[in-house]
Amino acid sequence: MSKKYLDDGLALHTDLYQINMSEAYWSDNMHNRKAVFEVYFRHLPFKNGYAVFAGLERVIEYLKSFRFTEEDIEYLRDELGYQEAFLNYLRELRFTGTVRSMKEGELVFGNEPILRVEAPLVEAQLIETAILNIINYQTLIATKASRIKQVIGNQMAMEFGSRRAQEMDAAVWGARAAYIGGFEATSNVRAGKMFGIPVSGTHAHAMVQVYRDEYTAFHKYASCHKDCVFLVDTYDTLKSGVPAAIKVAQELGDKINFKGIRLDSGDLAYLSKKARKMLDDAGFKNTKIIASNDLDEQTIIHLKSQGAQIDIWGVGTKLITAYDQPALGAVYKLVSIENENGDMVDTIKISANPEKVSTPGLKRVYRIINTKTDKSEGDYIAMEYEHPQEEHRLKMFHPTHTFVSKYVTDFEARELHQDIFIKGELVYQCPELKSIQDYAKANLNILWDEYKRVLNPEEYPVDLSQTCWDNKMKNIDEVKEKVMRKLN
Amino acid sequence: MSKKYLDDGLALHTDLYQINMSEAYWSDNMHNRKAVFEVYFRHLPFKNGYAVFAGLERVIEYLKSFRFTEEDIEYLRDELGYQEAFLNYLRELRFTGTVRSMKEGELVFGNEPILRVEAPLVEAQLIETAILNIINYQTLIATKASRIKQVIGNQMAMEFGSRRAQEMDAAVWGARAAYIGGFEATSNVRAGKMFGIPVSGTHAHAMVQVYRDEYTAFHKYASCHKDCVFLVDTYDTLKSGVPAAIKVAQELGDKINFKGIRLDSGDLAYLSKKARKMLDDAGFKNTKIIASNDLDEQTIIHLKSQGAQIDIWGVGTKLITAYDQPALGAVYKLVSIENENGDMVDTIKISANPEKVSTPGLKRVYRIINTKTDKSEGDYIAMEYEHPQEEHRLKMFHPTHTFVSKYVTDFEARELHQDIFIKGELVYQCPELKSIQDYAKANLNILWDEYKRVLNPEEYPVDLSQTCWDNKMKNIDEVKEKVMRKLN
Repeated sequence: MSKKYLDDGLALHTDLYQINMSEAYWSDNMHNRKAVFEVYFRHLPFKNGYAVFAGLERVIEYLKSFRFTEEDIEYLRDELGYQEAFLNYLRELRFTGTVRSMKEGELVFGNEPILRVEAPLVEAQLIETAILNIINYQTLIATKASRIKQVIGNQMAMEFGSRRAQEMDAAVWGARAAYIGGFEATSNVRAGKMFGIPVSGTHAHAMVQVYRDEYTAFHKYASCHKDCVFLVDTYDTLKSGVPAAIKVAQELGDKINFKGIRLDSGDLAYLSKKARKMLDDAGFKNTKIIASNDLDEQTIIHLKSQGAQIDIWGVGTKLITAYDQPALGAVYKLVSIENENGDMVDTIKISANPEKVSTPGLKRVYRIINTKTDKSEGDYIAMEYEHPQEEHRLKMFHPTHTFVSKYVTDFEARELHQDIFIKGELVYQCPELKSIQDYAKANLNILWDEYKRVLNPEEYPVDLSQTCWDNKMKNIDEVKEKVMRKLN
Repeated sequence: MSKKYLDDGLALHTDLYQINMSEAYWSDNMHNRKAVFEVYFRHLPFKNGYAVFAGLERVIEYLKSFRFTEEDIEYLRDELGYQEAFLNYLRELRFTGTVRSMKEGELVFGNEPILRVEAPLVEAQLIETAILNIINYQTLIATKASRIKQVIGNQMAMEFGSRRAQEMDAAVWGARAAYIGGFEATSNVRAGKMFGIPVSGTHAHAMVQVYRDEYTAFHKYASCHKDCVFLVDTYDTLKSGVPAAIKVAQELGDKINFKGIRLDSGDLAYLSKKARKMLDDAGFKNTKIIASNDLDEQTIIHLKSQGAQIDIWGVGTKLITAYDQPALGAVYKLVSIENENGDMVDTIKISANPEKVSTPGLKRVYRIINTKTDKSEGDYIAMEYEHPQEEHRLKMFHPTHTFVSKYVTDFEARELHQDIFIKGELVYQCPELKSIQDYAKANLNILWDEYKRVLNPEEYPVDLSQTCWDNKMKNIDEVKEKVMRKLN
């Protein structure tokens, strides 16, 4: 930007109220009180049965490099008028907290902590906006990709959405999230370079226009690239595109690998069936048909049910923007704060809307795996000091409709959080991207199919331990009583 | 990223097929043929009556700094296997083309060129993805913001969406686009620093939780900040939040400016009316009520119709993600290419879908302003060599339903494109952001109200000149004939 201030750091990627609160805490000597915040969302996106967590690697990079630059300080002083002593404090600020988090590729459900920050109050507060910004988007796209991949099955899925993504970060981080969710490739070369994702693509309509006809364009492409996928819908798919592709492939024979044709418009069910027959009749039985054009899990399921002869699916806009629900509502809530005596006390956010009441205290999340079926019975949120893995018979009950309950025996209680930072030190090694994708796939295997349906999945249980539930009720009562007393 | 390749440049922010086509052009010695591409979208987003163009400044920065880094070259060689001679060519590549574009803040409609690139073929091709990625998002958000601002009117509108934006670029560039569309402030401090947008914000629910009750929290906030807006819905808006705010304001008197209270949940119509009465009864008639919570143009229009006492509107998710239509479908189409004799020839993309047929040739776009009313009669797309501004009686007709026509006299034909780059040299000075906002506002004044309705606006005319229309039909016939001949 040819502007007064360069974009030289991300510490200011926060809401102004975080800085205003921080100044108040700092003036009141509260800034180093230890605070615990949890990230969670209330509702699964797309009415899906699960979500796929993504974003941790970007959060880690952000926290590692968190600092206010001299330009940031100058801006806060000159344009926003913060006092010098506070700015001196901000200048030295680094992230010194402890973070526990699910791993990327973990399946995650509503109302369970994905990531937990324990840090001096101001540090924990300032990082809220960026953490939510990252996790909300990447988890949304990984989930959408996983959902689309459920329908695509073992066929190949490619992410093609860069030009319709919501600015550049969304294009590359969305490509990465789509890969985590099960997509095999992206068209975005920068995402390929940054993350090692396989990249895919051949040519556009423009090339056919440049050479005026498909026959010439395909020949020119083939003279430079041995692996050929020809785009056949620039003028007329069945009358000119497919015949030209076949003619060029016949003329060039073994000089090229005629890998596929791509359909990017029209009635994909009809065109793919006709094109398949034309290719087969010409002896190109191994040549694949790649389709794109505003696809999503709904159009794909319908195309398949109509017998479309599509082998490879290119998904763009609907995936990269999470078109049918373009935002995930993850929040960042204070669950515990150090008091004046140095003790940690639970905190709660009350609301007239019962689902918006937060769950206080330091907690752990366990996935309860039935050791007889190797399938999950649900997730179990317990207080940090509890040990559900040592129980023989675990009571699981619905946190709202508490009469819905079951007892589980023969189970493994798998804790879902890892240490990421301990007192500011990174103790976690980010896995290779491919192994994150594999992890997400393996996690899906422990879910019953009923939770994986694209339409009307069963609700996966996310339960509170009795102790955790009791603690929540106690906190509600205490806060209501205290707030009212203060006013009268 | 602790990855093999750093993210050190944006030239790879493109689809792989652009690079594959480029290699084919380069091998065929076609890479320096002059090509002309136009950016346009077919349908207005949100069924709105107009769109507000944004994104040019980011496009300019991208083109100015366009180059493949050594790391990019290494990646293309080692991971993707491109030949060395082609990579040497890419290494030296800079943008040397000519760009004409609408100004940011210009009103734009379907099927008219927003931006035009004339450049050596490979350069023009490689930049497609990034240009669309930028313009699609920023124009979408500026349009959504303008639409919401139509309903908010003269009250203040603030952008609060960072945490739900689709990754970080969307948060800051979306904040800028929202400002262009008429929003007065953002909560994102980095956007404030980068672009000079006013930033806004006070404190969050967490601060009330930290101090356990609102009375204490508000006092602490007020001891550090003279201008106070108190968030009143942490526990119970009318029973605890508003009374605590009033009590603190009464106790502190002139020591603070009790600027407002903020409602972030619950029934905003009911709560705002009750809170207004409580504030008025306590003598705080100038204290404003700020509301947020999943607002958009629909909820705002309904809240207003119910007499909600809201003075300032904070809009987040629904704006920053363009929730009801999260992608704009702008495309980048080749309209002219240099032939082997050095002459420019028109190109066209045919489609079974008539609306997807492109309009060939170098064109200019004029806004036809009626000099008697100072209102626009519609836009008029003519061939570059035409001079509609010199005509006395201009025939305007619908490009599809050609019998829908009118004659206009007493008009000014205002050309909408500016020179931005000439042969790689930047010749355009980006305006200050505030003047872009003012420009958008002024542009709205020349539109009849019928085009500005949020629901069911009239369709604004975007017409082709007779010459332009005739040329399009001629191209369609020629291509159809040529393509068929080649195959037989």
